[in-house]
Amino acid sequence: MRADAARNLEAVLTTGARMLAADPGASIASIAAEAGVDRRTVYRRFACREELLGAIYEARVTAIEQAIEDARLREAPVAVALHRYVENIIAVNRTWPVDLARMLAEDAIRRRRDACVAEVEAFLRRASGEGLLRRDQPQCWAGPLLPELVNLAAHRQAHLSPGQAADVVVDTYLHGVGVPRQRSQDPPAVRARSLDQRRDAEVRSGTRPAVGFAERAGLRTHRLKGPRTWLVRS
Amino acid sequence: MRADAARNLEAVLTTGARMLAADPGASIASIAAEAGVDRRTVYRRFACREELLGAIYEARVTAIEQAIEDARLREAPVAVALHRYVENIIAVNRTWPVDLARMLAEDAIRRRRDACVAEVEAFLRRASGEGLLRRDQPQCWAGPLLPELVNLAAHRQAHLSPGQAADVVVDTYLHGVGVPRQRSQDPPAVRARSLDQRRDAEVRSGTRPAVGFAERAGLRTHRLKGPRTWLVRS
Repeated sequence: MRADAARNLEAVLTTGARMLAADPGASIASIAAEAGVDRRTVYRRFACREELLGAIYEARVTAIEQAIEDARLREAPVAVALHRYVENIIAVNRTWPVDLARMLAEDAIRRRRDACVAEVEAFLRRASGEGLLRRDQPQCWAGPLLPELVNLAAHRQAHLSPGQAADVVVDTYLHGVGVPRQRSQDPPAVRARSLDQRRDAEVRSGTRPAVGFAERAGLRTHRLKGPRTWLVRS
Repeated sequence: MRADAARNLEAVLTTGARMLAADPGASIASIAAEAGVDRRTVYRRFACREELLGAIYEARVTAIEQAIEDARLREAPVAVALHRYVENIIAVNRTWPVDLARMLAEDAIRRRRDACVAEVEAFLRRASGEGLLRRDQPQCWAGPLLPELVNLAAHRQAHLSPGQAADVVVDTYLHGVGVPRQRSQDPPAVRARSLDQRRDAEVRSGTRPAVGFAERAGLRTHRLKGPRTWLVRS
């Protein structure tokens, strides 16, 4: 295909994706006009809207495959791969705002889409295995949650670049939108740290003898001359 | 309305909501049969599918209004109100799995739905004000995120009760699905705690003298007989 023909095809497909997402009844003529491409050229390639839609879905799947490959989901550090994948898919969702669910009847598309889903699921298992994702979540939760966040960011945070929107998605995906855990909601380890902090503060303010530090560390202590002097053996 | 007539109507509406969500072309006759209600009784009330759909949308809005009222969004403690609201709306989404977006052309429905949205937005502002939600998030993020999570839990975690599903939604909404923040991503306070923890571990293992505890607390220390015995004044 010549370079200008390729550019025209790309313009017809991306314009068509955008217009058909907003109005599924948009005509090929109106899409050609909006894309600035001669209507007869478009008709020569796509006999009807369904053919154009098929090409758009194909372009979307191809873009998703490239997004996954570019993110190096199997080998890049998980946190890096997650951000790159999210950033890439936000861009895909903006360029190709079409729902693949409608095309799953097409065998070839469904196979390619299933392979993408499997790749991302394997990545999320790796992310759990490497300690990025919690393991105490129900099945079918972290997986389906990610595309929902990506989609929300792609369309409801349209003023953000894909990279900025990915910052928000990854942050929310990993940490939620709540203020970081408070004492009463903390897991035991964090509660313990926080008790230690209180004790430190008490020692500094003189309301608790410093020997508490040593006791906490399992060291032997002996009180020496006066109530606030201690012998510590480590 | 007599009690059995009210029960029949309820059965027709909930069965209709479920069947029309799965297949928008489901017939009134098939809905009546599934609901176990005489077809003529249903036709007397709803001349066509659109009328039945209108009644279903109305029932959904009413259920949402009740869910909000029951959650006492303006006065209950925010964490309690958030969980109750989520639990209630999960139940609403399961009973009335219809998308109100289609009905927003209807003035009365749109006004009632807008009032619900405004009530929830006011609640989320209260939740931010009271320190439950972060304030460093972009506009139009925490708000639209909540119904996405609720919807995902309602339908993708169908084996969980509304209460259990609400546990998952609220936990993810507030804390995400990532392992709690790691050292490199931590705010300074947490990093400091974690340094202290490392020091504690070193003292316990004997690789750092216990007096570190005292020094950390700003106390005077004197080395006594031998390298590992210290005098601490607090």
